[in-house]
Amino acid sequence: MKILVLNCGSSSIKYALYNMDDKSVMTSGGAERVGLDGAFVKVKMPDGTKKKVMHDIPEHTEGVKFIFSLLTDPEIGVIKSLDEIGAVGHRMVHGGEKFNKSVVLNDEVIEVFKSVSDLAPLHNPANLKGVMAVSELMPGLPQVGVFDTAFHQTMPAHSYLYAVPYDLYEKYGVRRYGFHGTSHRYVSQRVCDFLGVKYEDKKIITCHIGNGGSVAAVQNGKCVDTSMGLTPLEGLMMGTRSGDIDGGAVTFLEKKLGLGPDEMSNLLNKKSGVLGITGISSDMREIDDAVAAGNERAKLALDMYNYRIKKYVGAYAAAMGGCDIIVFTAGVGENQYQMREAVCKDMEYMGVKLDAEKNKGIRGEEAIISTPDSKVTVCVIPTDEELMIATDTMNLLKK
Amino acid sequence: MKILVLNCGSSSIKYALYNMDDKSVMTSGGAERVGLDGAFVKVKMPDGTKKKVMHDIPEHTEGVKFIFSLLTDPEIGVIKSLDEIGAVGHRMVHGGEKFNKSVVLNDEVIEVFKSVSDLAPLHNPANLKGVMAVSELMPGLPQVGVFDTAFHQTMPAHSYLYAVPYDLYEKYGVRRYGFHGTSHRYVSQRVCDFLGVKYEDKKIITCHIGNGGSVAAVQNGKCVDTSMGLTPLEGLMMGTRSGDIDGGAVTFLEKKLGLGPDEMSNLLNKKSGVLGITGISSDMREIDDAVAAGNERAKLALDMYNYRIKKYVGAYAAAMGGCDIIVFTAGVGENQYQMREAVCKDMEYMGVKLDAEKNKGIRGEEAIISTPDSKVTVCVIPTDEELMIATDTMNLLKK
Repeated sequence: MKILVLNCGSSSIKYALYNMDDKSVMTSGGAERVGLDGAFVKVKMPDGTKKKVMHDIPEHTEGVKFIFSLLTDPEIGVIKSLDEIGAVGHRMVHGGEKFNKSVVLNDEVIEVFKSVSDLAPLHNPANLKGVMAVSELMPGLPQVGVFDTAFHQTMPAHSYLYAVPYDLYEKYGVRRYGFHGTSHRYVSQRVCDFLGVKYEDKKIITCHIGNGGSVAAVQNGKCVDTSMGLTPLEGLMMGTRSGDIDGGAVTFLEKKLGLGPDEMSNLLNKKSGVLGITGISSDMREIDDAVAAGNERAKLALDMYNYRIKKYVGAYAAAMGGCDIIVFTAGVGENQYQMREAVCKDMEYMGVKLDAEKNKGIRGEEAIISTPDSKVTVCVIPTDEELMIATDTMNLLKK
Repeated sequence: MKILVLNCGSSSIKYALYNMDDKSVMTSGGAERVGLDGAFVKVKMPDGTKKKVMHDIPEHTEGVKFIFSLLTDPEIGVIKSLDEIGAVGHRMVHGGEKFNKSVVLNDEVIEVFKSVSDLAPLHNPANLKGVMAVSELMPGLPQVGVFDTAFHQTMPAHSYLYAVPYDLYEKYGVRRYGFHGTSHRYVSQRVCDFLGVKYEDKKIITCHIGNGGSVAAVQNGKCVDTSMGLTPLEGLMMGTRSGDIDGGAVTFLEKKLGLGPDEMSNLLNKKSGVLGITGISSDMREIDDAVAAGNERAKLALDMYNYRIKKYVGAYAAAMGGCDIIVFTAGVGENQYQMREAVCKDMEYMGVKLDAEKNKGIRGEEAIISTPDSKVTVCVIPTDEELMIATDTMNLLKK
């Protein structure tokens, strides 16, 4: 079966076409600048070659339609007819408390999804546009929603509640939801397969460190805590997001700078994090270069970045009463050995012994990077959210 | 030498008179409802008897004057003349980055203190009123300022900075300062004396758990991190304060509820925490009673409360590369064995073994509550901020 995975953002549409017979990616790519001038689609072929196609994309339906046309394009297409696609799996950001697993999308489910859009006013409507575009272009094609929040729905109340008046939770759904759930689920399961151990027995800390980043505590196969909250702002320091900050600092800055909540949110989400501290970039590769060039502020940003990951690892070990496995994944987690080294430094007290040499050599591949006698097994596991979405989609259709 | 300790809040003045020859408290008490109708002073005598004296106190100078008159009162006074007082030590809340230790107060120092009042607009001006009142009533009497933030000034930049644009730190002093510094300093030093170990060698986690609460990581005699931030809102769940919350939840709630920054700050500081979750009380003793009576929401609040302390203990163990000593102090920390038990539960992975029976029996006294073979020594140390203030004051005058 061939499954198309779609990830629709407010001005982008990422896609990947899977052949689920061997779980291979037939082609993938993404439309960018949707709704803006200069829109284009980047296409990646199975042989690794890339192609950029300029195309006017005023809205999502046109974008999905154009992506469909590229899939069947005589020159760069990989299928002959759209009928070969068995289903579409959508990455959907915020499922609120309504979705604790992936679901087949129908009118009823879509109404429920709409009811939590308030919690992700930028992302959920964009996700929905993708669903609607497919419905319009290929009526009757099964579609599945895979939620970023679903995996974290097993958190106990003492982890997910904020200590604000309880009726704010009841009325407005103010609580910790967590994001990157599909990635945390994938790597926590995958690492157990990789190590040949039982998922249901283990205490695992998964560090998804990319331009956005979050840490999750996964105990006996269930997420028990995660660092992102009601929104993806909370937790780690990120490319442009502040991560954890005193609520009192938020209101202090609003007063000092004369900012309303939307402007304040913009400051914390778009102008903070690594970019805010360095003033250089939100990209950790550029920060590494700046550190190498002796930039003190870049060094500081890196120290802050790593220190906060380390504190979450420590906190979640305490939350679970110890830890068996630590996983690093996503762009930075898979590729920056210095970050992994900094996080695992001086962690012998909780049973972590990193193999420093081994760690240095690992980029974007599955590997154990702790020593054989380390009580905690530290691993790199490249994440694969698209494969997880395709797999969920296939499994739901088989039912 | 006799030293008067003053702690002036916006509508209260607490005091204690120390005889530093034997470090005993000669008398203590506090004026309440300063500036309000129905003001009174509570006086505690050395023999433990208490007395409440009604007295109109329109502002702080009148309050300090009345306290002075009580100290020399023929009936309930403990000194014959105010000349017996060698100095006054003031608890002062926010020293910003200007004060990393206690200082003798003079015009210059007071100007510096005023320059950081912005960071604690309710507390600093009230502290200053106390200083001014003493200057007016007893000109020439030496006065010392002891800052809640001073002990935490040793934190490294990667601990104290928020990941917001760096110029907000430079322009407005937005960073983590931490509070309860005098208490964290006292108990971290005192526990080492108590155990007969060297302060400069140890990794200590101090849990100051009262109606307000904070945790500090003290490594080799220096604070390296603490849970309160720019304001005393951040960190643990407290009586009426939310503690840690997603910055995105702050702006979300402002929009939902139509609140400005002052109103939002009020919600998070005064109506949240244990009170917000239970709707019953901010007092952990009442919450314990409610739990005993089967109140589910109270049980939830307790679980949240304890869980957050546990996560900070875990995070700070990671921050220091392990932990030698954990100290519990302040109202809840000294008296609620259930909290200590919950925090230390399943912490063997980091070397904590609580002596459950011993722990149960300890209320408000210095004691080891871990087992003899516990790698981490867990202690209860009653805090004594007033004694610390009196001691700092005496030591500075001796110079």
